[in-house]
Amino acid sequence: MAMKKAGVLGATGSVGQRFILLLSEHPEFELVAIGASARSAGKKYVDACTWKQTDLMPAQVEGLVVSECKAEAFKDCDVVFSGLDADVAGPIEKELVESGLVVISNAKNYRRDPNVPLIVPIANSEHLKMIENRVAKADCKQGYLICISNCSTAGLVAPLKPLVDQFGPLEFVSTTTLQAISGAGFSPGVPGIDILDNIVPYISGEEDKIEWEAKKILGGLNEDATEFQLDDDLLVSAQCNRVAVSDGHTECVSFKFRNRPEPSLEQVKQCLRDYVCEAKLLGCHSAPEHAIHVLEQPDRPQPRLDRNRDAGYGVSVGRIRPDPIFDYKMVILSHNTIIGAAGSGILIAELLAAKKLI
Amino acid sequence: MAMKKAGVLGATGSVGQRFILLLSEHPEFELVAIGASARSAGKKYVDACTWKQTDLMPAQVEGLVVSECKAEAFKDCDVVFSGLDADVAGPIEKELVESGLVVISNAKNYRRDPNVPLIVPIANSEHLKMIENRVAKADCKQGYLICISNCSTAGLVAPLKPLVDQFGPLEFVSTTTLQAISGAGFSPGVPGIDILDNIVPYISGEEDKIEWEAKKILGGLNEDATEFQLDDDLLVSAQCNRVAVSDGHTECVSFKFRNRPEPSLEQVKQCLRDYVCEAKLLGCHSAPEHAIHVLEQPDRPQPRLDRNRDAGYGVSVGRIRPDPIFDYKMVILSHNTIIGAAGSGILIAELLAAKKLI
Amino acid sequence: MAMKKAGVLGATGSVGQRFILLLSEHPEFELVAIGASARSAGKKYVDACTWKQTDLMPAQVEGLVVSECKAEAFKDCDVVFSGLDADVAGPIEKELVESGLVVISNAKNYRRDPNVPLIVPIANSEHLKMIENRVAKADCKQGYLICISNCSTAGLVAPLKPLVDQFGPLEFVSTTTLQAISGAGFSPGVPGIDILDNIVPYISGEEDKIEWEAKKILGGLNEDATEFQLDDDLLVSAQCNRVAVSDGHTECVSFKFRNRPEPSLEQVKQCLRDYVCEAKLLGCHSAPEHAIHVLEQPDRPQPRLDRNRDAGYGVSVGRIRPDPIFDYKMVILSHNTIIGAAGSGILIAELLAAKKLI
Amino acid sequence: MAMKKAGVLGATGSVGQRFILLLSEHPEFELVAIGASARSAGKKYVDACTWKQTDLMPAQVEGLVVSECKAEAFKDCDVVFSGLDADVAGPIEKELVESGLVVISNAKNYRRDPNVPLIVPIANSEHLKMIENRVAKADCKQGYLICISNCSTAGLVAPLKPLVDQFGPLEFVSTTTLQAISGAGFSPGVPGIDILDNIVPYISGEEDKIEWEAKKILGGLNEDATEFQLDDDLLVSAQCNRVAVSDGHTECVSFKFRNRPEPSLEQVKQCLRDYVCEAKLLGCHSAPEHAIHVLEQPDRPQPRLDRNRDAGYGVSVGRIRPDPIFDYKMVILSHNTIIGAAGSGILIAELLAAKKLI
Repeated sequence: MAMKKAGVLGATGSVGQRFILLLSEHPEFELVAIGASARSAGKKYVDACTWKQTDLMPAQVEGLVVSECKAEAFKDCDVVFSGLDADVAGPIEKELVESGLVVISNAKNYRRDPNVPLIVPIANSEHLKMIENRVAKADCKQGYLICISNCSTAGLVAPLKPLVDQFGPLEFVSTTTLQAISGAGFSPGVPGIDILDNIVPYISGEEDKIEWEAKKILGGLNEDATEFQLDDDLLVSAQCNRVAVSDGHTECVSFKFRNRPEPSLEQVKQCLRDYVCEAKLLGCHSAPEHAIHVLEQPDRPQPRLDRNRDAGYGVSVGRIRPDPIFDYKMVILSHNTIIGAAGSGILIAELLAAKKLI
Repeated sequence: MAMKKAGVLGATGSVGQRFILLLSEHPEFELVAIGASARSAGKKYVDACTWKQTDLMPAQVEGLVVSECKAEAFKDCDVVFSGLDADVAGPIEKELVESGLVVISNAKNYRRDPNVPLIVPIANSEHLKMIENRVAKADCKQGYLICISNCSTAGLVAPLKPLVDQFGPLEFVSTTTLQAISGAGFSPGVPGIDILDNIVPYISGEEDKIEWEAKKILGGLNEDATEFQLDDDLLVSAQCNRVAVSDGHTECVSFKFRNRPEPSLEQVKQCLRDYVCEAKLLGCHSAPEHAIHVLEQPDRPQPRLDRNRDAGYGVSVGRIRPDPIFDYKMVILSHNTIIGAAGSGILIAELLAAKKLI
Repeated sequence: MAMKKAGVLGATGSVGQRFILLLSEHPEFELVAIGASARSAGKKYVDACTWKQTDLMPAQVEGLVVSECKAEAFKDCDVVFSGLDADVAGPIEKELVESGLVVISNAKNYRRDPNVPLIVPIANSEHLKMIENRVAKADCKQGYLICISNCSTAGLVAPLKPLVDQFGPLEFVSTTTLQAISGAGFSPGVPGIDILDNIVPYISGEEDKIEWEAKKILGGLNEDATEFQLDDDLLVSAQCNRVAVSDGHTECVSFKFRNRPEPSLEQVKQCLRDYVCEAKLLGCHSAPEHAIHVLEQPDRPQPRLDRNRDAGYGVSVGRIRPDPIFDYKMVILSHNTIIGAAGSGILIAELLAAKKLI
Repeated sequence: MAMKKAGVLGATGSVGQRFILLLSEHPEFELVAIGASARSAGKKYVDACTWKQTDLMPAQVEGLVVSECKAEAFKDCDVVFSGLDADVAGPIEKELVESGLVVISNAKNYRRDPNVPLIVPIANSEHLKMIENRVAKADCKQGYLICISNCSTAGLVAPLKPLVDQFGPLEFVSTTTLQAISGAGFSPGVPGIDILDNIVPYISGEEDKIEWEAKKILGGLNEDATEFQLDDDLLVSAQCNRVAVSDGHTECVSFKFRNRPEPSLEQVKQCLRDYVCEAKLLGCHSAPEHAIHVLEQPDRPQPRLDRNRDAGYGVSVGRIRPDPIFDYKMVILSHNTIIGAAGSGILIAELLAAKKLI
């Protein structure tokens, strides 16, 4: 089978580097175009990029020449992954989509557009139906955009979506996050002096993202699957902290179902244990064996021990127990740069390929 | 004025060392007796103790000889501070109290006894009235026990108590804690490999302590002030995490008042800004100038920057804002070894002295 | 080809767990026997062991029953790996060897025995000739012991040995180590409160080990290869520190050759770049592609970025530059639990197999 | 006694903030002028500055208006402390000195000027004689510049200088540093992702500074005290690392005296124990009771436990022991932002006042 051609926007940044690493050994995608700022354009990647990954820069990407982020440079790509910063992503992604390209973006710019799917690929891949419909109706090649959710939102909805699908909608979700510093990028990211022996109980814009995005992902499509409909009856409260962890977001979550009687503790656990995500059913390369790992040890999940389950595509959930105020509380751990960012982008592309949408 | 004589039980442990440090420069108390396990008894303190404080061991305590923890050795003490571990504290503290001594304990053993005051000295010193009554009625010297609350409970109730006093009882309190490792003591405490680049989302027994103790402290006394009455209508939910912070517990708290309409955001802040604790009014030496510091910067309080406000006796509260589910949410920071443990013990003793109860 | 049978002594400890992980996916060795203390003996491994690795416990080892550490239980093993603590390793390893078993030990007990090879498999595998000779001369199956070097010693000699082989003996080696906490095991290992925002400038016995073991490994065998001869003309000075790093020992090393003129900076680098270890030449499964990685970036090697080169079997060397006092200085990084401990044991066993010594 | 008027250049930066904190409670100096970049000039300090200290911004400085860094704004100052970055410090400090002001600078720009004293106030205050002579000879008010040494140099020479004074010059000094992140400032300083679970074995320019500055400070003045003379026979080798410590530089140091026989271990220790710095003899306010603390515990000094000895003006030295290559080795800990930077500036000013040089 011919490899599909992939491009990466924002290739020198933190998320872009992760896209490049994940693509470098991918059996289905071949990296053919990389874009960055005008300052980097024209340089070889190895010269343009301050590589900060624990894996070495893949040899085959070292010599790739960086383009500016314009549609022309990506016109051969079957799919383009965007790791652009929000302050520049808007018009660039728009131009690419309008020129007929398929863009999967980690930027926040279009997440709230009701016509743009906001996808956590292990949770709500069903919402890609909106794209299926659009492509089916079109008489020529369609560009379209898919947004990856915020990293903390991804971890939060991963176990909640199967619960909603099985037991009906939620009334309340309260989450306090303990987020890794890799989520802040690295130029400069979180200063060392701010995080050593410390916590920063604030991440700009993050709480609002979680409170809003969860309603879109746990909501659904309208009847003809042309638009997203928020679950506005769901109340979500988030408190976000930056902590001294390199990778892996921990979330302490309480939640309450709308239906009474609520499912039993064992039903909740069994639902999560039994859950198999669509990407796995479709045989996607990166799909986790277990989208949700239900842990029974009293002190798990822990970032250092559990963040790499299923290569970072699996989310760990532990300490599921009754909550004195809501129905249940639990601890969620997700790998913020894999299932919370670049990895989700790759898995979305695999889903698109499996569904013949690219 | 003559110095009052003080003793310390569990003097070689983490909490005991803090008691000793705080007493070593105290204008009102003089350390005259220290007790530890039979293994240490008979040795000089400097030989019995692995000192782990950032301040040097006070010179005057180096040569003090460690006793066993029996009433006889403390019979001259006006007050005895207990830093004993829970597995031995019960019978020892009982023996001292029955022999007529006043014991202020950091152990959990008697916290749930309705006849034992559970005191956070910057929050519910009014509950010492139970002791005042008892002493007033007695015709001879009375031994009695006062318990210091759990460290996370102390930080939680410090700002909630003034709010309850002004705006009436709470219906819901939800807290997620990010707790410092000094709270786990140091033999061995939290292993380094468990906390570096990691979070442990579990502290044995801690959530239950918070959920229960808050109801006692935010509750009150019965009519004749002879017994505590829990606020059983209050629902508290706690999720506790150990994080890579040396000192200072952070808590992300949401809460809802029982009365409608609830106070406004500004009323809540003003109440906390205006609050002066009784210990300050009575001129207690260690009483904080501000029991509650209300911070307005978006990213505060932070452990490294704010834990030492008022020498660790002041609690910092920031990010007070509306909560989508409850009334308000906020971030609380308290120094777990000062206001959350030994420091509270000292301040309780100062209150007892000011009230002529020792 | 039939799998060789392997056993692990001290299987529940930190080093033992690493042996088990490395064996679980090994193409040449099959784990058939595990030993631990009498307290664990008779239990299934999953019940006897507090598993602390970032990889999950291999499924096939969960049900293995733990034996006591006696020769009888390991009699079918082609090779036995010992992760025993030094306080018990001596007589146990002796009994196994005397009963005809081949033991590869991480314990320090016999490292200084002139008849026991002390091997860093990427550096001085030639010293196994002592075993080859002994086996060749014997008329029956020979038990023998091979010691893995101290972890810091391994990192130190890895680049020095090829230099000595090419440019002649060293006169001075000065090293200051910055050692990871995983090297201290985890019961309890380094307490968190001792390592957060801190350095412990002392590791019991470590400096002496480095100063002595380097002389054995950088020395050689006597003429008939029956005994080790220390390089007593080599002066080694070590200062050891424990730092807040999970895995990966960093060493700042200065060294001076005995021969004048000394090799040029470029000759030193070229020697290290060209070096191929014997295990690689023999096609050993775990042998690193590059035993030594010579880095040219000014700020490398770094533990988080470079410790996993060649799966932890490769050692990184950077900042090679002239030293104002000695000839050259450089920074070495080695993975303390792989090439510095269990991984070296596995690679030694692969060498023994390749040399038909097991 | 009238307070002396002080100014601070670079007042919004990391070093400037420390100068301001130290001056805010100083009995002898009154802060009257603060300078920063043109961007900050004209603003109140509280608005111009991102305050990052663990102590709150002193109330009396909040309203001070920031000036540009020109002599005119500081003309009333008896002494001006410079926390300027090296890229701007040169011409600014020159202008102030030429206009007759006394400047004490933390910048590196003029440290190597033979006519500028390079002072570690607890070590080589005798070198201020150069200023005494110059002032004595002048017939009008003299501006002059004094440089504070590099932070690691300060810790290194603090114990070496008394040894040199008593036992004669050194032949070799080898130091490996483990430096705190506060030394890198905070805009952005060391990124969190670079220092969590990591070491950066490189600090730009640092090794060269130590190797050069030590020769100036351990050297002396020419006969008529008009110029510094480097000790060019001293060979110094430094390897510098950034580690996950907030405050406090640790150095592992080996050294050899020129004279044979070398002093005994006990003589070395006694010399350091007996040492009293001139600032203490002169009664300077900030002078440490013990400039050097000699520790006998095997695992000390440690940054978290020992950095605040004598409020950060005392240097701790431990593990003094024979070195296999040189004479002795030892571990030094110094507070990099106090005795290694701003604190040294303040203590130099106190020395100048005590010597009637301001």
